Amino acid sequence: MKQNKYDNPEFFTKYSQMTRSVKGLAGAGEWETLEKMLPDFQGKRVLDLGCGFGWHCQYAIDHGASAVTGVDISEKMLEVAREKTSPQIRYIRTPVEEAEFPANSFEVVVSSLTFHYLVSFEDIARKVYNWLTAGGDFVFSVEHPIFTAHGSQDFYRDAGGNPLFFPVDHYFSEGQRDTTFLGEKVTKYHKTLTTYLSALLQNGFTITGVVEPQPPAHMLAASEGMKDELRRPMMLIISARK
Amino acid sequence: MKQNKYDNPEFFTKYSQMTRSVKGLAGAGEWETLEKMLPDFQGKRVLDLGCGFGWHCQYAIDHGASAVTGVDISEKMLEVAREKTSPQIRYIRTPVEEAEFPANSFEVVVSSLTFHYLVSFEDIARKVYNWLTAGGDFVFSVEHPIFTAHGSQDFYRDAGGNPLFFPVDHYFSEGQRDTTFLGEKVTKYHKTLTTYLSALLQNGFTITGVVEPQPPAHMLAASEGMKDELRRPMMLIISARK
Repeated sequence: MKQNKYDNPEFFTKYSQMTRSVKGLAGAGEWETLEKMLPDFQGKRVLDLGCGFGWHCQYAIDHGASAVTGVDISEKMLEVAREKTSPQIRYIRTPVEEAEFPANSFEVVVSSLTFHYLVSFEDIARKVYNWLTAGGDFVFSVEHPIFTAHGSQDFYRDAGGNPLFFPVDHYFSEGQRDTTFLGEKVTKYHKTLTTYLSALLQNGFTITGVVEPQPPAHMLAASEGMKDELRRPMMLIISARK
Repeated sequence: MKQNKYDNPEFFTKYSQMTRSVKGLAGAGEWETLEKMLPDFQGKRVLDLGCGFGWHCQYAIDHGASAVTGVDISEKMLEVAREKTSPQIRYIRTPVEEAEFPANSFEVVVSSLTFHYLVSFEDIARKVYNWLTAGGDFVFSVEHPIFTAHGSQDFYRDAGGNPLFFPVDHYFSEGQRDTTFLGEKVTKYHKTLTTYLSALLQNGFTITGVVEPQPPAHMLAASEGMKDELRRPMMLIISARK
């Protein structure tokens, strides 16, 4: 059974209260960067892998996509997505690893903060390449390899709880990391930068963008703690073309 | 005056005693990875930015390059290069930032562990693009952004000196880092991964490879300390095509 943390009632409740869940895309620190890296959606068939509440699916519909498919493992997430987003969007409940589509089914494939939950990035890169039409775009965000390497996903702190610096360790040992997110144990899979980019290149993709997003100025100004986001990269956004 | 640490007699002496200086390419942990990312040199005009002792220049000559130019700021390094490598190689003493060549002068530009000494990667990426012929290759290694961010360039250690983990901090604050290398103060310039890859893409390069090298098995087996190299990436090797 693939990990389905989002159907755990406590986890789901906590996740639903996060700024990014309440405010949607505008509440996600990386959104402004991700939006700039998205292709024109006009008339395109779009797939979102790990669509959650469907915010990105709705964005694609709002920007002219001709058809949008969202895939997610969590029924609870999809219930909310079906309720809150456009009925034009097709939602499929399945683990991302088990999703299957015919070749050349989409002009755009997007994925937000999902692939660090998958054991293999090579597998999904190969499948996405097959699902895309020639010239199609693949844009995704993941937790940064610097952020996933050590496993604690937290700063190393002094006795007073002040962050001293961010720890990196076991970088070249890819695989399972048992971390804590919203007070719950969550399993993620660390992958190196080399793995993400080489899997794309080896499958035939052209890399069109690699950006480590920083929180926008208004978020930095709104909270003192947000400045710590400048001390280490938490996310990596990659765009590639078939 | 650009930093010219290698003409400092003490530094030069210590650098000359490093395994990579005594054994050449075979003594460099990243060489096996870098070699695989180099293009065919046959009949090509090759430029090496920060050529040092000229090992990579000699490699290009040995692999059929029609003309090889090495640029370095250090006269002491170039003295050794002129003495030990092929008289066919042209060596130019100048800071890399001040090197100038006509457009379309080279089919290949390489650089080994030099660009983290330069303030700007954008400038050199733009120049290299101009110097290369269409289809030309640009392959370089730099210290990894994870390695340059904090500034200490060393593990965080317990009271007994055992490495606990590698510290990352100030990641998004690019610029000067005063570090210690071979017991001497050396100034380096931290740049993010985003900066390296975006500068290439924005100047028109196609990215063909991004690899974080790991020491080869025989080096890992030869020394217990070498295993720490697997705990954090120290270098980043990038190949790109005009």
